[in-house]
Amino acid sequence: MRRTPKEELANRIRALQGCMASESINAALIVQNADLLYFAGTVQQSFLFVPVSGEPLLFVRKNPEQAREESALDHVIPVGSPRDLPAMLSEKGFGKLDRLGMELDVLPVNHYFRFQKLLNTGGIVDIWPAIQAVRMIKSSHEISLLQEAAVLTDYMVGVARKSLREGMTEVELAGIIESAARTKGHQGMVRMRSFNQEIYWGYLVSGPDSAAPSFIDTTTGGRGVSVAFPSGAGLRVIGRNEPVIFDLVGVADGYNSDETRTLCLGSLPEKLDRAYQVSLEILRALERMIRPGIACGDFFSEAERIAGVHGLGEHFMGFGKQKAGFCGHGIGIELDELPVLMKGNRMPLSPGMVFTVEPKFVFPGLGSVGVEDNFAVTEGGSRKLTASTYEVDVSF
Amino acid sequence: MRRTPKEELANRIRALQGCMASESINAALIVQNADLLYFAGTVQQSFLFVPVSGEPLLFVRKNPEQAREESALDHVIPVGSPRDLPAMLSEKGFGKLDRLGMELDVLPVNHYFRFQKLLNTGGIVDIWPAIQAVRMIKSSHEISLLQEAAVLTDYMVGVARKSLREGMTEVELAGIIESAARTKGHQGMVRMRSFNQEIYWGYLVSGPDSAAPSFIDTTTGGRGVSVAFPSGAGLRVIGRNEPVIFDLVGVADGYNSDETRTLCLGSLPEKLDRAYQVSLEILRALERMIRPGIACGDFFSEAERIAGVHGLGEHFMGFGKQKAGFCGHGIGIELDELPVLMKGNRMPLSPGMVFTVEPKFVFPGLGSVGVEDNFAVTEGGSRKLTASTYEVDVSF
Repeated sequence: MRRTPKEELANRIRALQGCMASESINAALIVQNADLLYFAGTVQQSFLFVPVSGEPLLFVRKNPEQAREESALDHVIPVGSPRDLPAMLSEKGFGKLDRLGMELDVLPVNHYFRFQKLLNTGGIVDIWPAIQAVRMIKSSHEISLLQEAAVLTDYMVGVARKSLREGMTEVELAGIIESAARTKGHQGMVRMRSFNQEIYWGYLVSGPDSAAPSFIDTTTGGRGVSVAFPSGAGLRVIGRNEPVIFDLVGVADGYNSDETRTLCLGSLPEKLDRAYQVSLEILRALERMIRPGIACGDFFSEAERIAGVHGLGEHFMGFGKQKAGFCGHGIGIELDELPVLMKGNRMPLSPGMVFTVEPKFVFPGLGSVGVEDNFAVTEGGSRKLTASTYEVDVSF
Repeated sequence: MRRTPKEELANRIRALQGCMASESINAALIVQNADLLYFAGTVQQSFLFVPVSGEPLLFVRKNPEQAREESALDHVIPVGSPRDLPAMLSEKGFGKLDRLGMELDVLPVNHYFRFQKLLNTGGIVDIWPAIQAVRMIKSSHEISLLQEAAVLTDYMVGVARKSLREGMTEVELAGIIESAARTKGHQGMVRMRSFNQEIYWGYLVSGPDSAAPSFIDTTTGGRGVSVAFPSGAGLRVIGRNEPVIFDLVGVADGYNSDETRTLCLGSLPEKLDRAYQVSLEILRALERMIRPGIACGDFFSEAERIAGVHGLGEHFMGFGKQKAGFCGHGIGIELDELPVLMKGNRMPLSPGMVFTVEPKFVFPGLGSVGVEDNFAVTEGGSRKLTASTYEVDVSF
């Protein structure tokens, strides 16, 4: 069992406390799984209390023994019910909690009202902007885990290339890839934070179905197996000379990699092949731009510009009205992190940011093509984490 | 593509409107995927407006064309942004929305505040109790889909029995089962409603690891592949004469089946074998009890009583303090539905309820054993949906 190192947790808590101080937040009560994993190193059912200065207290409702094994925090305290929290906090010197931060972007309303009644607080404010800012900058420890995740998606691309055969269904190929990845330690579960954004491994989609828009905020989605979850691999039979889009997520030790490759048995229709070459051109241009200080929005503008030069603006990141509005997003322990390479986003890149660059083109009725790699921003430029070949034809 | 029939949607809306009327709720705005699927037949990004009487309006933000294909509702209306809702509702005659119901059990706080500011409402109340009550009673259409899901888990048990070999890891076996189920149309994604309750297919766990408690509210959980998601199949190598717990979810057309079988290469240690026989005894006793009018809590009491007679009370549904507190739960388009067979629950069974019965015993350091079947309550008793053999030994 690999735990998050103690020093790593301490750095993260310290960074959060810095943000809290600058926003006059006196304490935070963190309850969501991904945030618990990040700040406490465990997802056992817990309440993580972080005062603006001093040591955090991890109150564990379910499986305190597991939490003690998993978390490198010093103070792991069993708690029977959230109702016991006020007295336990008061005993530790935290009586009145003015401006208490909680994760208001994910906390359900009924939980919020219960905490508001329960805790002696002058007001609950949103701690998510602070958490998001901290989590956006990855440590070298995290980048090594993101690199492991990228190795996993590279492996999955390899399995796809090797296994793709004419006449197999999308779900058949997806199942082979998923099964192989599971034996390599893929955790299966892909965490997305935003409300209602559901994803299952990502998208393994083909032919015209690869142009079917997603019900979540991604460029393409595919058809899935039914109306109940209409995205990802479906029952379509894969043929020759059509795009097979591998857009899947690898998860190693909780960290995500998100990689896209365009595969084909034979050769793509000319229109798609041309667009695919443009997606590679955009990828390379954007890679060269990555360095601290460049605004996120500049990447989108440059990508749009290149797409426009080739007369492909209408197809870029979705067709017509149904566009994703971004060509890259942060990755970490959730799939929808900062920064977002979105039009007009003036946030400058900083060392430690890790994100995807994913130029894609969608042609309704024909299919989609594109590519997606993962990059970490370094002091002097970038480090590319994913490393699969861009070759399309997998027949031999 | 199979849509939810128009008459089916109409019945569901009518049942909801009945609950709304009795609680003086004037209108509901439904936004969560599972509820959208249930009441509108689609999970495209939407806001479903249900007045206490009259026709529902489905406002679709993303993919209105898909929503029109997928939903049998008459009024599918494209909407650019939630900001446009008040004017569009007002135009349809819904100006002031007094006592507006929203899903406050899942709606994030920040969304709630945004809706509160946006909508001309005298107050937002929780519509979830009403939705939950409606969704708890399954139609014959739904029971046929739940039956299909049960056939899928039966198939998955069969794959597990056929594929289990000494020396394979839990994830290897899980991958084989998942891959086979995907080709049969399993949607992959398993929906759970409660905050922070994450599950991936369920649990395929073995030996002592099958006794590792779950971080969510289930009896057992296993170890998973890392601290980041410490539940479900892990990297443990499966041996002879130890329990291999198949506790997996089948999802067909959005509907869940949840089935548990205890498998073994050879024979179980005597203590576990005895407990397994008791779990079968409890299952049969509880099955005989199922009929309209019996209180949910009576099932738990009777199960506990039988476990106690055999001196196994301490191990029933978890060991010592770490007990799940229930021995069955409702299933539908989410895995954590009503009714819950929980101590003290006085809710009486009604025809159309569908739930699991899952007596299990946990022996720390040794493993767990148990069984889980799915039942639909009928007018005269029950109908069993799952049908796998209870035979433990899979060697041949």
